[in-house]
Amino acid sequence: MFTKYLTEPTLILDQGKCLANIKWMANKATSNHLIFRPHFKTHQSRAVGKWFARFGVEKITVSSIKMAEYFANDNWKDITIAFPVNIREIEKINALAEEVQLNLTVENTESITFLSKKLKFPVGYFIKIDTGYHRTGIDPDNFQLIDRMLSEAVACDNLFFKGFLVHSGDTYHAKDKKEIEHIFNHSVEQLKNLKDRYIKNYPQIVISTGDTPSCSFLNNFKSIDEIRPGNFVFYDLMQYMLGACEFNQIAVVVGCPVVAIHYERKEIIVHGGAVHLSKDALIINNQQIYGQVVTFNSKGWQKPNKKIFVTKLSQEHGTIQATDKLLKSVKIGDMIGIIPIHSCLTANLMKSYYTTDNDKLDHLSGVTI
Amino acid sequence: MFTKYLTEPTLILDQGKCLANIKWMANKATSNHLIFRPHFKTHQSRAVGKWFARFGVEKITVSSIKMAEYFANDNWKDITIAFPVNIREIEKINALAEEVQLNLTVENTESITFLSKKLKFPVGYFIKIDTGYHRTGIDPDNFQLIDRMLSEAVACDNLFFKGFLVHSGDTYHAKDKKEIEHIFNHSVEQLKNLKDRYIKNYPQIVISTGDTPSCSFLNNFKSIDEIRPGNFVFYDLMQYMLGACEFNQIAVVVGCPVVAIHYERKEIIVHGGAVHLSKDALIINNQQIYGQVVTFNSKGWQKPNKKIFVTKLSQEHGTIQATDKLLKSVKIGDMIGIIPIHSCLTANLMKSYYTTDNDKLDHLSGVTI
Repeated sequence: MFTKYLTEPTLILDQGKCLANIKWMANKATSNHLIFRPHFKTHQSRAVGKWFARFGVEKITVSSIKMAEYFANDNWKDITIAFPVNIREIEKINALAEEVQLNLTVENTESITFLSKKLKFPVGYFIKIDTGYHRTGIDPDNFQLIDRMLSEAVACDNLFFKGFLVHSGDTYHAKDKKEIEHIFNHSVEQLKNLKDRYIKNYPQIVISTGDTPSCSFLNNFKSIDEIRPGNFVFYDLMQYMLGACEFNQIAVVVGCPVVAIHYERKEIIVHGGAVHLSKDALIINNQQIYGQVVTFNSKGWQKPNKKIFVTKLSQEHGTIQATDKLLKSVKIGDMIGIIPIHSCLTANLMKSYYTTDNDKLDHLSGVTI
Repeated sequence: MFTKYLTEPTLILDQGKCLANIKWMANKATSNHLIFRPHFKTHQSRAVGKWFARFGVEKITVSSIKMAEYFANDNWKDITIAFPVNIREIEKINALAEEVQLNLTVENTESITFLSKKLKFPVGYFIKIDTGYHRTGIDPDNFQLIDRMLSEAVACDNLFFKGFLVHSGDTYHAKDKKEIEHIFNHSVEQLKNLKDRYIKNYPQIVISTGDTPSCSFLNNFKSIDEIRPGNFVFYDLMQYMLGACEFNQIAVVVGCPVVAIHYERKEIIVHGGAVHLSKDALIINNQQIYGQVVTFNSKGWQKPNKKIFVTKLSQEHGTIQATDKLLKSVKIGDMIGIIPIHSCLTANLMKSYYTTDNDKLDHLSGVTI
């Protein structure tokens, strides 16, 4: 059993499942003639990054300067920071821009004005468009603002317009495939209009989108040029419940030592709490749940026939509402697997990976750069 | 302005408020003739630990072996791990027990049996009692199980019974002071019965309890011997809403750069998301909120007259539902302060502290031991 020597809560990564996820998405991008610029915020791991390189990936997406620095240090040369530029980090932006092809995301003229004055090296920029998620971005009809940003950037020798970037995060809350398709199509339509309007002056213009649910469900990407899915590398319970993946595509699980069993209320307590799994939750049968229980086998994990969930979570404790069968088979000191709700947050908390092949892999949050 | 040189999301610690919180609780313990064994899981910082030492603290509580190792390395010599013992970590337990007075928490005979066989050095053990929170612990009437544990431990030269330990986590969900007093009094009564029953054979027996809400509200600790509050060192929005602290006792805030402003929907977007604040939430006016906004001044922060909250949170983004006044005063690139819902989880995610006196302090999650 590969869990034999694990003593504490450990993020276990099934390399085979992870590679299959990467290969599948890379192939989908290729067959649709799309630029595949995967979001590395889910894994934040140099080692997993190298697995992407095996499939020809050269362009990546990150969500912070720190992440960009981490991957630039590992020789990634074309990096988009898909997060509204934080102008306080101008020194780090300049340092990065000297080393790599750096693309920033902007959504207001203040940032363009600031960058125009302070940039010392060329950077690309995407204009963030809001096609319905309403977190960040510019209304796709707000040509006045887009024109103002473009004309201000033209005056700067170091700012190069790359295209329009969208994150349709609303697909994460969609009811079904049909709703995801609807969100995607509606978004693409608006982006297509923008591309048509600006392509004359910017012939290299790129339309970049592609959240994990859309990229998982869809096979026709229409007029999209680039996709940036991230979560698919591991998937998780949220994606599974949404129907974006099969259970056996989920590539990470938190191994948690059993520290207490309360037969009278059918609860198993593991060392595995909010500092391991994160407090992200799903509502299933009117109950807030923090992860699904799996049992380990010699090469990985399998789900029990009945769905068993983590139903309470404090800083270090996880409480599993168990079945009689699970209660009978588990004893103090065993390792139990918990499929996380949201693998991005769990990986960030766990700080490293232990593979089912007994390798230990870095996560940015566990290293000092 | 002390925030002038901050460029990224930063956990800011007001040393003055923190020291005042420590002093206040240490004095309360002294005047009630209590052993003060503060829980260090909230701050997990060597530097903050040293502030406790200024007030005579020599005994501490932690919630994992890793935390015990970290503080043992910083010369703490009397450490209780207030978490059901994880027997898979026996090697680390033995290594620690050789160096410090280590107290474990047990709640089943399996662990006692295992420890009896494997311990190489003396450790103390507390029996975990459940007086109503129903997370872990033994029913206070279950004398049969307690007797069995005690008698099994007697046969082991390295196991020393220290007393009964409770965590009344239900006070965190209490409606008001009255309910907290009720929970506390009910718990103490049950512990007192246990003490009376076992003191003849164990004259040094200690009754240990004391969550932050109880320790904040109460002034009469009755027959309790030891308190272990943790959160009071920083407090947070959860404790404030519960009435356990004043707003100006909250000693930490996350400084977040403003990256986008959406006037049309009165939203400010900061770099400050679930990987900084944690997804812990409170329901206020039927809305899930992830933190309260404060504005910085030259020496710290002040709350605006109107309550302004973080109402949405993704991995790196925080969305503030702002007032007209705040919208008018804030610009792209400013730093905004967010009071966290649950300071323990936020500090764990932020990995270090930046004090209002411009010092940088460690957090265990940001160091390699």
